[in-house]
Amino acid sequence: MPAEAIKVTVDTVAMAVQQGQLEILLIKRKHDPFKNLWALPGGFLEDDDSTVEIAAARELLEETNVGDVYLEQLFTFGDRERDPRGRVVTVSYLALLRQDDLELRASTDASGVAWWPVLDLPKLAFDHRRIVEYAHQRLKYKIEYSAAAFSLLPPKFTLRDLQSVYEAVLGRSVDNRNFRKRFLKSGVLQELAETSQEGSYRPARLYSFVEQEFEQLPDRPVFVF
Amino acid sequence: MPAEAIKVTVDTVAMAVQQGQLEILLIKRKHDPFKNLWALPGGFLEDDDSTVEIAAARELLEETNVGDVYLEQLFTFGDRERDPRGRVVTVSYLALLRQDDLELRASTDASGVAWWPVLDLPKLAFDHRRIVEYAHQRLKYKIEYSAAAFSLLPPKFTLRDLQSVYEAVLGRSVDNRNFRKRFLKSGVLQELAETSQEGSYRPARLYSFVEQEFEQLPDRPVFVF
Repeated sequence: MPAEAIKVTVDTVAMAVQQGQLEILLIKRKHDPFKNLWALPGGFLEDDDSTVEIAAARELLEETNVGDVYLEQLFTFGDRERDPRGRVVTVSYLALLRQDDLELRASTDASGVAWWPVLDLPKLAFDHRRIVEYAHQRLKYKIEYSAAAFSLLPPKFTLRDLQSVYEAVLGRSVDNRNFRKRFLKSGVLQELAETSQEGSYRPARLYSFVEQEFEQLPDRPVFVF
Repeated sequence: MPAEAIKVTVDTVAMAVQQGQLEILLIKRKHDPFKNLWALPGGFLEDDDSTVEIAAARELLEETNVGDVYLEQLFTFGDRERDPRGRVVTVSYLALLRQDDLELRASTDASGVAWWPVLDLPKLAFDHRRIVEYAHQRLKYKIEYSAAAFSLLPPKFTLRDLQSVYEAVLGRSVDNRNFRKRFLKSGVLQELAETSQEGSYRPARLYSFVEQEFEQLPDRPVFVF
């Protein structure tokens, strides 16, 4: 195959934490290849897309109705055998979302759109399983060395909510006391006057994330538990 | 332009530190577009390349005679206007090298191959200046949070050599005493019995990098100066 026949696609791993589980947004393919399998939302880069990132945002919106998201480029996968249609190089992106903010709607090209738990994924089309694993690894790193966890939370959250995000992403429990202590002294949380009443727990203090603080700290805090 | 006309290239930012300067390996273009301008070594992904990384290694070898290097994928650039030949998406890679180990040789496609100081680059073809800036930024981060600095050093080096690499990459001087103290207590340096005698300095102790130590440290050391 001459180099001219190579195509470029974009694929987005959109992640959210729901009920203590890390979940990924998938669409069900209506057409071949991999008809009826689940896949990452994505598609071909088109010349109307002035940048690759804009193509990823366009495909995500078209296929899932999720718009206005911050996309981070992850990695480009281009192994020869990854697509049965021929040589297709895909640029992958990560989006961190809150499910409550979204109203999913599948495009006419797909027969479904849904959130799936990372720990219980269906069989995926192409090499999308590998892309999901790469994204998950990146997110694990990001929540330890950046403020990424707060993109997965509503503006007001309890320490329990915050810990739940870390545990969902890391896939393990973290020490309760140490977790709270580290965050409370880190300077990135603003204690609010309000409390949250959920279920049979006693009212819990609500916090918000102080983005400016985080950016301005001379030694960036590291949240490795 | 239909999506079918999109092409994929690879470009490598190969970096080394020489005489206290951070330098980049460039080739001089013999043909249009950008004839006679300097550019990153790279070229079109071909179907014989089983992976994109293999394409980058092949192009680097063909164009500069530099082979057998570790390549790290950096970022994929695909803005519509970046190549006058049409839509070309390029996957960029970073290589960290030691100039003493290499014998450069330009391919017949190029009219030159040379190391250029990052702080004194010529006008570059395409958006290669932007790619170089991205690579430099990544390297600044990497030497603070990984063992990347040692890829730029020979197996035996003095503390002065090590500090010179940090200063060249960061583009500023670092505090001498603090630098030495941090590294000596980090556990990643093995003190050797040998010394180095250079110029009119008094003999300086030689060290080697203890890779295993670095990997096994529970809290990875951070070399932010």
